[in-house]
Formats: sequence, C-alpha cells, structure tokens
Amino acid sequence: MTSVGALPFADAACCAPLVREPLTAAAATDLARTLKAIADPARLRLLSMIAAHEGGEACVCDLIEPLGLSQPTVSHHLKVLTDAGLLTRDKRGVWDYFTLVPGALDSLADVLSSTQRR
Amino acid sequence: MTSVGALPFADAACCAPLVREPLTAAAATDLARTLKAIADPARLRLLSMIAAHEGGEACVCDLIEPLGLSQPTVSHHLKVLTDAGLLTRDKRGVWDYFTLVPGALDSLADVLSSTQRR
Repeated sequence: MTSVGALPFADAACCAPLVREPLTAAAATDLARTLKAIADPARLRLLSMIAAHEGGEACVCDLIEPLGLSQPTVSHHLKVLTDAGLLTRDKRGVWDYFTLVPGALDSLADVLSSTQRR
Repeated sequence: MTSVGALPFADAACCAPLVREPLTAAAATDLARTLKAIADPARLRLLSMIAAHEGGEACVCDLIEPLGLSQPTVSHHLKVLTDAGLLTRDKRGVWDYFTLVPGALDSLADVLSSTQRR
C-alpha cells in the first residue's frame, strides 16, 4: 500500500473536515479505527522515529534500543501501523524496513483541522 | 478550561511536529491520551455535531436523538472529551451546553501534520 488513496478516511480528509459538517456513522468508524492505531505512546514514538530517521526509513533493528521494548513488541506495533495504512514495509535480507506512507498523517491532520491546508 | 494552552500537548503542537524529530516518551504519553479520547466513533460524531451546530454550541438534548444513544452514554462521552480539554461545558438551567475549545483540534492536527499551518 503506497497511496494515501488507500486510507479508509481519505475521502473524508479531502471533503469533509470534522468541524465542517456532522460526520456520518461510517466515516466516524473509519476515522476512529485509524486514530486508535496511533493512540498509543509506543506507536506514536515509532512513527516519529521512522520519520526523523535518515532517509525517512528505519529498520526494526534501529528502533528496538531507542524505544526500550522487545523486538516482538516493536514488531507488533509496527504491524498495527502498517495494517492501518500509515507505514509501508520492505523486507530486505533478515530485516524489515519501514517508511511512512506519504500523506497519510497529513490526511488525518486535515480531517481534524478547521482550516484548509492543501 | 478555555485556553488551548491548557492542553497537555500544546507545547508539542507548537514546537515539535511528530515527523520533525523523535517524540519524547512524555510527549508521546500526553499525545496518546488525547488521541484516545477522540479515537471513538461516538465521540468523533459528538465533536463534529457540536462544531456544526448553530453557534458552535449544542445542548446534550440536541445530541441524543441524532446519535441514537442513551443520555447517560452521551453524557459519559461528553465528559471524556471535556476532561481531555477538547470541549467546554456550560450549565444553563437543566441542561449542559458544550462548545469546542478553540484551537484544540487544530493543535492536534498540527502535531500530526508535516507542514506548518499557523
């Protein structure tokens, strides 16, 4: 998954910011699902560490020590973020490398924002 | 609570968007707490319905029927959003009236966004 168009709330992000008109039940369910994926301190730090890493890409092996969690725990959090359409995974050799899906967090920001940014 | 300065993530919103530099553990904990408050379909719809309501203010009595939930459930969700610093409550007569805290959702959007908006 490399396109922001694949995000479930992409249409809402484009057309119906939260504060402009009442969210439909379906749009609210999709948006809540994505927010739940990031509403966790470890997952927020992972997104942030990957974005700030050289080239905007990080290996699982880069993330374990700074986060202070076990590899299985880090891998679980990375899977949640990947399943939510926020990260892409690229397997190279023995390690998985992760990058942010371009525009994914911005789409989320657009839904929450009262001003049009893009 | 009427000022966005009271939000726990206000400093992060101002100075350290998620994708610019790695979030500290403390900032991630604060931000996750606020995201958890909105990562619920009913609470997202409540924020949206209040924002879209006439004058940006709504009575609990305006929200029960469109949401299709009981009054105690709606009141619980409104308390979570108020405790998270996203809504202000004004008691008038027998009903509570709610408004969005100005700038609160925008501050959250700023932390998630990769571009500077304000």
